[in-house]
Amino acid sequence: MQSFLPPNRLLMGPGPSVVHPRILDAMARSTIGHLDPAFVGMMDEVKEMLKNAFKTENALTMPVSAPGSAGMETCFVNLVEPGDKVIVCINGVFGLRMKENVTRLGAEAVIVENEWGTAVSPEKLEQALVDNPDAKIVAFVHAETSTGALSDAKTLCQIANQYGCINIVDAVTSLAGSELRVDEWGIDAIYSGSQKCLSAMPGLSPVSFNDRAIEKLTNRKTPVPSWFLDLNLVMGYWGKGAKRAYHHTAPVNTLYGLHESLVMLTEEGIENSWNRHQQNHILLRDGLNKLGIDYLVDEASRLPQLNSVIIPQDQDDLEVRSSLLDNYNIDIGAGLGPLEGKIWRIGLMGHTSRKENIEILLSALKDTL
Amino acid sequence: MQSFLPPNRLLMGPGPSVVHPRILDAMARSTIGHLDPAFVGMMDEVKEMLKNAFKTENALTMPVSAPGSAGMETCFVNLVEPGDKVIVCINGVFGLRMKENVTRLGAEAVIVENEWGTAVSPEKLEQALVDNPDAKIVAFVHAETSTGALSDAKTLCQIANQYGCINIVDAVTSLAGSELRVDEWGIDAIYSGSQKCLSAMPGLSPVSFNDRAIEKLTNRKTPVPSWFLDLNLVMGYWGKGAKRAYHHTAPVNTLYGLHESLVMLTEEGIENSWNRHQQNHILLRDGLNKLGIDYLVDEASRLPQLNSVIIPQDQDDLEVRSSLLDNYNIDIGAGLGPLEGKIWRIGLMGHTSRKENIEILLSALKDTL
Repeated sequence: MQSFLPPNRLLMGPGPSVVHPRILDAMARSTIGHLDPAFVGMMDEVKEMLKNAFKTENALTMPVSAPGSAGMETCFVNLVEPGDKVIVCINGVFGLRMKENVTRLGAEAVIVENEWGTAVSPEKLEQALVDNPDAKIVAFVHAETSTGALSDAKTLCQIANQYGCINIVDAVTSLAGSELRVDEWGIDAIYSGSQKCLSAMPGLSPVSFNDRAIEKLTNRKTPVPSWFLDLNLVMGYWGKGAKRAYHHTAPVNTLYGLHESLVMLTEEGIENSWNRHQQNHILLRDGLNKLGIDYLVDEASRLPQLNSVIIPQDQDDLEVRSSLLDNYNIDIGAGLGPLEGKIWRIGLMGHTSRKENIEILLSALKDTL
Repeated sequence: MQSFLPPNRLLMGPGPSVVHPRILDAMARSTIGHLDPAFVGMMDEVKEMLKNAFKTENALTMPVSAPGSAGMETCFVNLVEPGDKVIVCINGVFGLRMKENVTRLGAEAVIVENEWGTAVSPEKLEQALVDNPDAKIVAFVHAETSTGALSDAKTLCQIANQYGCINIVDAVTSLAGSELRVDEWGIDAIYSGSQKCLSAMPGLSPVSFNDRAIEKLTNRKTPVPSWFLDLNLVMGYWGKGAKRAYHHTAPVNTLYGLHESLVMLTEEGIENSWNRHQQNHILLRDGLNKLGIDYLVDEASRLPQLNSVIIPQDQDDLEVRSSLLDNYNIDIGAGLGPLEGKIWRIGLMGHTSRKENIEILLSALKDTL
């Protein structure tokens, strides 16, 4: 059995994105204990920098020790109780996954259906809230990674709050790539991923809960069904002060990587990061247009960091993606679910979002198509 | 905000253990996609090497994308249904955690109490099975990390099987450090951790299910309450064949590290790894005896990789540990729960289990006490 030497891919899919060498270097630093005072100091810095990235003052802001799917589950498992009515807005794969989380917890999911590739409709959400005055929670995806559509999180949260509901927001793909203001927009519970616009490696899911969310958690009538994701326990480890209670063994080196990616984000500035993603998206869009490739999503709801484009009718999905991978080491994403074979998902996330990468891709696409 | 440069600790606590430079190097290799054909090939190698480490032919053998606590939860959440009666043998912190898993799932836990620092009693387990003929599952910890006691997994599984129960075995600290034969001993479901005797970084939990366990999973009357840990879905990603269904984004670089640690284990041989842990334990034990330090656990049940020793009466727990950390960069473990302030836990796990490390520790202890 031999050591594994991965090929050097240009990651232009839905994540992971290209990891900067500074972050890879951080991953290889020597492992220390998860209760070491030096490590606890680093944890505090991660929390502070995540608060900055989320634009929140929430004390409960920290990375869950598992990928984004576990961040989603952290929000639902802590906030939803059996019998709760939860309004789930679905406009892609990750909304469907939210629904799965709700029903597996013995709660009732009321679905607000939206066409895949469009934003969540605020009018439909409001109608669902009128029809279901006993609903307690509204959940939606800010940036739907399966379709490339951005929803208006500010408006959706405002409506949910008007009707007395807690909101849960999926920001896996939006954090650091699209405007996102947790406190200003009244977001109650939010989760993201390390491997998208933060450009760290997969394996961590930053979450943030405000006081309203914590109140819902504190007033539960039933215990949180997951021991591993119970924030009452997790915060004994990630909480305040020098003394941290052992809960689980944190993924030490992956946290080194996230720390470094957040240092780089701090250096750039969060608004500058949003702007860079937008500017590079325009470059890619113009290049794709010249090749005659159209977008799935209307311009107004288009994600800059996840460009879902319609596969030209004369092209074979798998053939083109395999050719890009085998001949150019470029990895772009396939469509998911009903969009499989119909779209490609071109990611410009984090360190991938650079002019030279766009030029390499456009040139390879031109040769391949 | 500055990059984090960790101190260079000699990790001699309950895990993480010292990570070999080869494994750290592997962590820093460039990230590729979790559905990349090259990555899928590496996943298959990880599964094969894990089967070898567990001594099993179980097709369902793979690492869960989160730390050992999530591996524990994977076993319980997939195998336990509401109303099931589960016999949980408790002889330390991790047995207590098993009980938490059972009750949070709406199942009934029947406790077999054992003194902390002793092995689980086969006689007590058998009596509990006689008293509870409707029990469906028996759960116990093979190597109790909180006390340093090894239980006789072979005998305990035999008894559980005689009474028609599925067994769930915690091998977080035992895998690669103590004799462990999943197929020969009739173990049905088992989980471990990457950061103990495998000496990889924390963040992954190898699990293995045999056909009996899969049958229990397949015949569930209720869906698995966790979407993230539902093995029906996870195995769509980790399963057979070249085509893998996206479930969650695997922690790519951490898996590079686990792969490298398993390559190193394959080079050494699993039996040689068990023997090395035993031989180095004897060296440490003899040295500690010379310093007048006694063990908590009787010789017959002592874990070679986790040496829990009684803090001498004239010594202050925190003072000694802080001195070792600050003056020698040596990290040893504190006691947990009722053993806090009473014992130290000295780990000789994986790459930590080397003669030179023992000599450094003994010399530092001699100077400090």
